[in-house]
Amino acid sequence: MNAAVSGVASGPSADSGPRPRRIAFLGPEGTFTEAALMQVPGARESERIPMASVPSALAAVRKGAVDAAVVPIENSVEGGVTATLDDVASGAELRILQEILVPIQFTLVAPGELALDQIRSISTHSHAWAQIRGWVEQNIPGVEYVPAPSTAASAVAFLDGHGGTISDGVPYDAGVCSPVVVDRHPELTVIAENIGDNKNAVTRFILVARPDATMPPPTGADKTSVVIPLWQDRAGALMEILEQFATRGVNLSRIESRPTGSHLGDYFFSVDVDGHIQDDRVADALMGVRRMCPRTRFLGSYPRADQRVIEVAKQHSDAAFIQARSWVDHLRGQ
Amino acid sequence: MNAAVSGVASGPSADSGPRPRRIAFLGPEGTFTEAALMQVPGARESERIPMASVPSALAAVRKGAVDAAVVPIENSVEGGVTATLDDVASGAELRILQEILVPIQFTLVAPGELALDQIRSISTHSHAWAQIRGWVEQNIPGVEYVPAPSTAASAVAFLDGHGGTISDGVPYDAGVCSPVVVDRHPELTVIAENIGDNKNAVTRFILVARPDATMPPPTGADKTSVVIPLWQDRAGALMEILEQFATRGVNLSRIESRPTGSHLGDYFFSVDVDGHIQDDRVADALMGVRRMCPRTRFLGSYPRADQRVIEVAKQHSDAAFIQARSWVDHLRGQ
Amino acid sequence: MNAAVSGVASGPSADSGPRPRRIAFLGPEGTFTEAALMQVPGARESERIPMASVPSALAAVRKGAVDAAVVPIENSVEGGVTATLDDVASGAELRILQEILVPIQFTLVAPGELALDQIRSISTHSHAWAQIRGWVEQNIPGVEYVPAPSTAASAVAFLDGHGGTISDGVPYDAGVCSPVVVDRHPELTVIAENIGDNKNAVTRFILVARPDATMPPPTGADKTSVVIPLWQDRAGALMEILEQFATRGVNLSRIESRPTGSHLGDYFFSVDVDGHIQDDRVADALMGVRRMCPRTRFLGSYPRADQRVIEVAKQHSDAAFIQARSWVDHLRGQ
Amino acid sequence: MNAAVSGVASGPSADSGPRPRRIAFLGPEGTFTEAALMQVPGARESERIPMASVPSALAAVRKGAVDAAVVPIENSVEGGVTATLDDVASGAELRILQEILVPIQFTLVAPGELALDQIRSISTHSHAWAQIRGWVEQNIPGVEYVPAPSTAASAVAFLDGHGGTISDGVPYDAGVCSPVVVDRHPELTVIAENIGDNKNAVTRFILVARPDATMPPPTGADKTSVVIPLWQDRAGALMEILEQFATRGVNLSRIESRPTGSHLGDYFFSVDVDGHIQDDRVADALMGVRRMCPRTRFLGSYPRADQRVIEVAKQHSDAAFIQARSWVDHLRGQ
Repeated sequence: MNAAVSGVASGPSADSGPRPRRIAFLGPEGTFTEAALMQVPGARESERIPMASVPSALAAVRKGAVDAAVVPIENSVEGGVTATLDDVASGAELRILQEILVPIQFTLVAPGELALDQIRSISTHSHAWAQIRGWVEQNIPGVEYVPAPSTAASAVAFLDGHGGTISDGVPYDAGVCSPVVVDRHPELTVIAENIGDNKNAVTRFILVARPDATMPPPTGADKTSVVIPLWQDRAGALMEILEQFATRGVNLSRIESRPTGSHLGDYFFSVDVDGHIQDDRVADALMGVRRMCPRTRFLGSYPRADQRVIEVAKQHSDAAFIQARSWVDHLRGQ
Repeated sequence: MNAAVSGVASGPSADSGPRPRRIAFLGPEGTFTEAALMQVPGARESERIPMASVPSALAAVRKGAVDAAVVPIENSVEGGVTATLDDVASGAELRILQEILVPIQFTLVAPGELALDQIRSISTHSHAWAQIRGWVEQNIPGVEYVPAPSTAASAVAFLDGHGGTISDGVPYDAGVCSPVVVDRHPELTVIAENIGDNKNAVTRFILVARPDATMPPPTGADKTSVVIPLWQDRAGALMEILEQFATRGVNLSRIESRPTGSHLGDYFFSVDVDGHIQDDRVADALMGVRRMCPRTRFLGSYPRADQRVIEVAKQHSDAAFIQARSWVDHLRGQ
Repeated sequence: MNAAVSGVASGPSADSGPRPRRIAFLGPEGTFTEAALMQVPGARESERIPMASVPSALAAVRKGAVDAAVVPIENSVEGGVTATLDDVASGAELRILQEILVPIQFTLVAPGELALDQIRSISTHSHAWAQIRGWVEQNIPGVEYVPAPSTAASAVAFLDGHGGTISDGVPYDAGVCSPVVVDRHPELTVIAENIGDNKNAVTRFILVARPDATMPPPTGADKTSVVIPLWQDRAGALMEILEQFATRGVNLSRIESRPTGSHLGDYFFSVDVDGHIQDDRVADALMGVRRMCPRTRFLGSYPRADQRVIEVAKQHSDAAFIQARSWVDHLRGQ
Repeated sequence: MNAAVSGVASGPSADSGPRPRRIAFLGPEGTFTEAALMQVPGARESERIPMASVPSALAAVRKGAVDAAVVPIENSVEGGVTATLDDVASGAELRILQEILVPIQFTLVAPGELALDQIRSISTHSHAWAQIRGWVEQNIPGVEYVPAPSTAASAVAFLDGHGGTISDGVPYDAGVCSPVVVDRHPELTVIAENIGDNKNAVTRFILVARPDATMPPPTGADKTSVVIPLWQDRAGALMEILEQFATRGVNLSRIESRPTGSHLGDYFFSVDVDGHIQDDRVADALMGVRRMCPRTRFLGSYPRADQRVIEVAKQHSDAAFIQARSWVDHLRGQ
């Protein structure tokens, strides 16, 4: 873990104690993303900079304004966070150094005490709205939905910014935010807690840096992320890619298709595989994929948040690769 | 085409000539979805009912309140419309009867004449915002974004609803909507036209009915949509599914993974394949997939919007299936 | 005739009804093939007709001169018996009704007592010679080999045909035959017994009839034999065939390539798979193979000699096929 | 010694340096194998040593008694020469340096003039007998077959070894041999020429040396031979091997299964693939196969006799491998 963090700070010339000073995150304060950031080793000592959007947080990394950024990449209910998937897939290269899981809980807040049947309109981020819809239909049927740019924003709008007074001019009755916001702003009134439809909901975040950051070393429980543009629009193309992994015994833990944006039917695949690029089977599979798709992009190898150790069959072990390579090299006179 | 439409009409109570009377669509009026609906044969004579969300439009179909619904399913820039993908994948079964392609153009409107540098805030639907961001950064850098529940809503908010007068109390300066809204509301002022970053952007919509609707007959240029939940969390599962298609020469034109919502790593795949379920190779492949994943769901076979005829190799033709089946049946004494 | 033939196929528990009267076998008497024939139910009551070659035995079946024939098809040391593999692969169709395993033992015989070092030449069939070469080199180094048309022939040549007298004019000192020959001709002198290099050597024989013979019913421990000509000379052709089996969970227990005889590189494959054509997964796989290779030939489904029961995964069971087929049929309106 | 051996491998344009002095071949003189040997560069100046069997010719190579050997490996009619396939697959390693194709023609000879209907018995090697059976049945029906250890032996038996006189004590009327024998022994009488059933019959021979022989360099029209023991007796094992080749675009031009000799169902595969081990795609595929089957044996890379140039798709070219490997190496910090 320390390695990953010192990686953020270090870059090629890293040498001593200094922690990452500046980490951007998808703000504002009080979002689930900030909760994720607080799990990054050294986060408390870092300067944490809220950004208005995923692209702006990643742009800050790319241009060197910050050392790293924490952004959401996948929600167990809503699926891939497309802004993140698309942004890391193009533009200047980035590297994922760590993944962080945050359980998702939603709290219904208002500027003061309200009975549920007094609530006529609710605001929150559209992703959050999708995750509480069942509870809302059962408990406040017919309520109006007002979109907000973030969950935290729907709540902090009730504050006038002057030492905790409640603002009047908010065009909705209640907001839905993370419990962190409530902890920080006790002047908000909690109407209902834990109102998510799926009590096991979790969001996965990633810590992203520039490619010169030190790669976290293999732990035996690692994950590698790549972006694979399909090199041509034909039958079996995806299968040929998958075979490159399968013939090396490399398991896929996630695969998502995303449009490239040029025209319908033009995809890239965002893929997570079990293992580290320092594992020979992963390196060999990536070589095969790269031959097929020369624009394949490596996003990083990093420890799995769940620390589940990957089991590797004998014929796909590093030892098997080393033995086989030395056999072929010997035959080729190398 | 007529068949598809009469399918919409038919249902349980279908009896004679009458066209589908009631078709729901993702409203409000003036959205791209309404433009798609207008391409459905018989649309002009139908009663067109705007709905607030994809789930509510599809719920209206399920409960029989409408005969069919038009909803977006895929955008060439933003990717799959997750609300639609997820909704048709669970709950009571539905059938896709037609797909409709609509080119996406965005118009910047205001309540009156404004220079670009006078605009400090813009509202539109978040999907639309994602598609004009490049233009905005180049032309109105630093502008504030205000989310709206739909593109049309961001524009019609300027109207006070009383015969075309412009309302004062709108908390943003300009909206972004489809050209249809402007046609319908000439009192809006057009500030800029065709501001989408991708000039070829197109959105695909589907016409959805209940499973008892008449299936459109094969045309030689068809598409079949299915939902495949991965039956277990293991390496190669996806590849085994793809092989069921590949061994019958069935091409995949779209594949998207979606979380089932229960926990991270639990997916279903939303898949479009070339061909009609009345084509033997498609039926045979679906049989194979269904054996693997007994909860596979059929969403429909319908004509491709691009009318591209599918080429079928000799060994995957209906004739080859008939010959091979009769050979095996004869050997088995059937 | 059918009655008689179904007798041939009746299996271990058959007990009544007319027996096959005429069964050809690769002669002469005393060969391992005759030992195999004696394992066929009803063999003792049958008329057993030795034939000079595999093709002549199979020709007798084809033209109706006999009801069935027993011929060798595979030897654990020498491999496939090419005469049999090639003959059943072309010409009028035949059906395998049973397989029979016979352990192979070799006995060295002479017309009278001889020390090993007195033997200067040995005759036997070339296949047998290949299987005793190690023993010979160790025990009678430098001995000359004289080819014989069969193992039995190399031994019975010592008999003059007149009541067991030993003939003088044989141009070699010793023969190598099966123990059966010695049992039948006690006038031969046994010089050494069980001289095969591989003590576990076994030969597999098949009982072959015409296609109108009753197919043995499924037992759960069955085998199906087919001949698959590769339909074109290109990469991956074999793999596509194997995938037809793999996607239905059908295991291959034997695969042999044979030249078609037209030119180098033109092959057919002789294949045994686990299961019976009455098993849906086997029938479905054969349909797939037949589509690929319209000249695929079915040689029969019959009980395995080792009676090993085939384990079938849930998704490849008959129940899974029935469920999937009825789902597709329902969707297609059939 | 190395110099001499590299002479063996030198190919058509080799012109200088010491020639191999000693090359064994499957004798006796006058066989098709000797005809193949005469195509080896430098053959006329070499000492050509006839051997009684394939194993004895290869044993002479292994123990250094000769520099190389020419043996048959595949016949377009009869298939693989099992003695050769099995011998090179075990024991001390050998290397194939060249393949040679010889058209197969058969000549019927006798000690003097004979009408066809005067011939009651014919001798030849059993493989030759299999290839003239059709002609014999049509022209000399009912003739008796007498096995001979080689085609040449069936003919030279008529010579008494003393300056071309014809011997009396031969126990058959006619022999079947290659035209070479007749050229060399004009005292034999030709009864019929070119009597093979398949006029395009051709046999493939190989020039075999010890592993320290210089490997022929890549020509663009090469072949690589390997022996692959199946590492376990389970479904899909063969398919996994084939996928190792397929995912690198390596075509199989020949595949033959052979029993290992231990027990039924235990196979090794003898495989020829398009390309040279110095081609990256072949080396990479062999690495994959070797991981699966650590006892995989390399038999050599050598020019194709038909000089057909192998076409390689872009993604399987050396350039693609080099690019992909340097990408992965860079990412791994190597």
